[in-house]
Amino acid sequence: MKNINIILVGAGNVGKAFLRVVHEKKDFCLKHYRLNLKVPFIFSSKGAFCCPLCEDSQEILRKLYPEFTFEESKYWKPGFSYTQALSSVDPGVLAECTPSNIKDGEPALTIIREAMETGWNIVTANKGPLVVDFAGLIKKARKNKVTLKISGATGAALPTLDVALYSLAGTEIYRAEGILNGTTNYILTRMMEGLIYSEALREAQEKGIAEPDTSLDVEGWDTASKILLIANAVYGTGLRLQDVKREGITSIPQEIKNESQKKGKNLKLLGKILKNGHKVRLEVALSILDSSHPLYMVNGTEKGMTFYTDNMDSVTVTGGKSDPRGAAAALLKDIINIYREK
Amino acid sequence: MKNINIILVGAGNVGKAFLRVVHEKKDFCLKHYRLNLKVPFIFSSKGAFCCPLCEDSQEILRKLYPEFTFEESKYWKPGFSYTQALSSVDPGVLAECTPSNIKDGEPALTIIREAMETGWNIVTANKGPLVVDFAGLIKKARKNKVTLKISGATGAALPTLDVALYSLAGTEIYRAEGILNGTTNYILTRMMEGLIYSEALREAQEKGIAEPDTSLDVEGWDTASKILLIANAVYGTGLRLQDVKREGITSIPQEIKNESQKKGKNLKLLGKILKNGHKVRLEVALSILDSSHPLYMVNGTEKGMTFYTDNMDSVTVTGGKSDPRGAAAALLKDIINIYREK
Repeated sequence: MKNINIILVGAGNVGKAFLRVVHEKKDFCLKHYRLNLKVPFIFSSKGAFCCPLCEDSQEILRKLYPEFTFEESKYWKPGFSYTQALSSVDPGVLAECTPSNIKDGEPALTIIREAMETGWNIVTANKGPLVVDFAGLIKKARKNKVTLKISGATGAALPTLDVALYSLAGTEIYRAEGILNGTTNYILTRMMEGLIYSEALREAQEKGIAEPDTSLDVEGWDTASKILLIANAVYGTGLRLQDVKREGITSIPQEIKNESQKKGKNLKLLGKILKNGHKVRLEVALSILDSSHPLYMVNGTEKGMTFYTDNMDSVTVTGGKSDPRGAAAALLKDIINIYREK
Repeated sequence: MKNINIILVGAGNVGKAFLRVVHEKKDFCLKHYRLNLKVPFIFSSKGAFCCPLCEDSQEILRKLYPEFTFEESKYWKPGFSYTQALSSVDPGVLAECTPSNIKDGEPALTIIREAMETGWNIVTANKGPLVVDFAGLIKKARKNKVTLKISGATGAALPTLDVALYSLAGTEIYRAEGILNGTTNYILTRMMEGLIYSEALREAQEKGIAEPDTSLDVEGWDTASKILLIANAVYGTGLRLQDVKREGITSIPQEIKNESQKKGKNLKLLGKILKNGHKVRLEVALSILDSSHPLYMVNGTEKGMTFYTDNMDSVTVTGGKSDPRGAAAALLKDIINIYREK
């Protein structure tokens, strides 16, 4: 049995779901993976829950379950710093769940760098720091002999990178296409069923599928970020967000929609990776799929990705829960796989 | 860089494809995984190619490429034994590619056991020994601190077990359904297009999709074997082939076929895993899928599998090359992942 200390940074929807999943899966992880998960530190935007000496922090957390109102606990310390936490217990995994900031990656980028330098492995659900400096973080991880896993930021419960790096190990992936954003796929699906864009968008917002500010989704930035991270992780490239040719779904010509409908085709916003020799090209493009395309039936908020390889032909993965619990389960999966590989 | 000695046992279609893939991917594996693959021993049914002291056995093999007519090489030794090979070089991976024998698993079972006892990891494309004694082999692997990987026997280029064990780590899989046999799926697809069973079967045989003896496929034995291996690997159960409730596709009532066609549904032979508490039930059943089922569009020789989990919803994987090269690539993938995990 191995004790694994986890520092959670960010106690929003995904962070709280992660605590619930870790809590529910404690015995499961002990039995199946011989990992004893502990969460001695939890940082929210307002302070920290600190329980480094607790015999079983899970037991303490259980009393706060399911809402985790840390502020009411005697372990709540408003002024506690990351630096203190990182050096108070044996390094394990820092789970980074702060809100995504693809402009400069902060505050996550600074936290992740410091954690790596003190021997902590990283799992993250946050695209921000990875979009800004994935190459630098990978280099720092190698230097400090720690692992960085990013399933939470590249499809979450849909295993995109796992399939590319593990299930397709040894193959050359020369092309990949993914429906990687549930909000845009929901809007497009409803548009193919007859709604106009503004109606479909409003419906998605009313159902809580789309955020109030949808620009990151509908303008293709979220898909661009994911395809960028997947490509950089698979090929070791240092591509940047501005290298992704990108379009959104906000101004689809009526005739394209009509023609797709008439011919029984489907409109999808695809993130695409195209490799030619050493050159990797990335784009987010509105695409018309016919029924022979493996992602043709991926509708509503569902996601999916197809990898085209030299020796295994194409492999497609679809599904995976698109909510905080799915993202939380992806973080836990990455933690388990870090220790499998060490 | 790590030198990896590989002993190949079985130089039929899959074994030869494996040699070709290892040969073509030598530089790729060195660059991407820092693994230097060497194949000092190759056993066919007639003898062995032995090159333990060759500076680079790949270089020697290159001269035999692409047909690998070992018998003409000066390294050919008709009477050489496995035992000698296993102890002549540093243990690496034994790749087992002899023909499948689900009756008693031999000769593979004896070879695998001996290899494990002398410190060799195992990758295999052969269901036989795994169907007969998976639990015993897993126990022996643990005892000898070696790894047994079986992608080649559980979908090959379609990553079924990888997804279940790696991509879905930490989840509880409570149900799984797979189209795991390309031959039966081809026959069923053609039947849904109007052929009767005997016509579809003959066509499959003419196209080289079905073997001359198709009973293992069309009576559901192949699907039953795969579902058995996947379940035993995922749950650590010791289920046996006789525990799988099984039907084939040889006598489908005409009215079932007609009704499926009329309603736009699809007939599939599904391998099913159903977990209820600690009880795991396995069956191979002809199933009528409507268009909402994730495997509805998996037609022809294509395969696919859906896993239903507690925290990630369902995840479906489809595709993967169904030929010796796909199986060979799956063996190489398993070798790479063994060393990633050590």
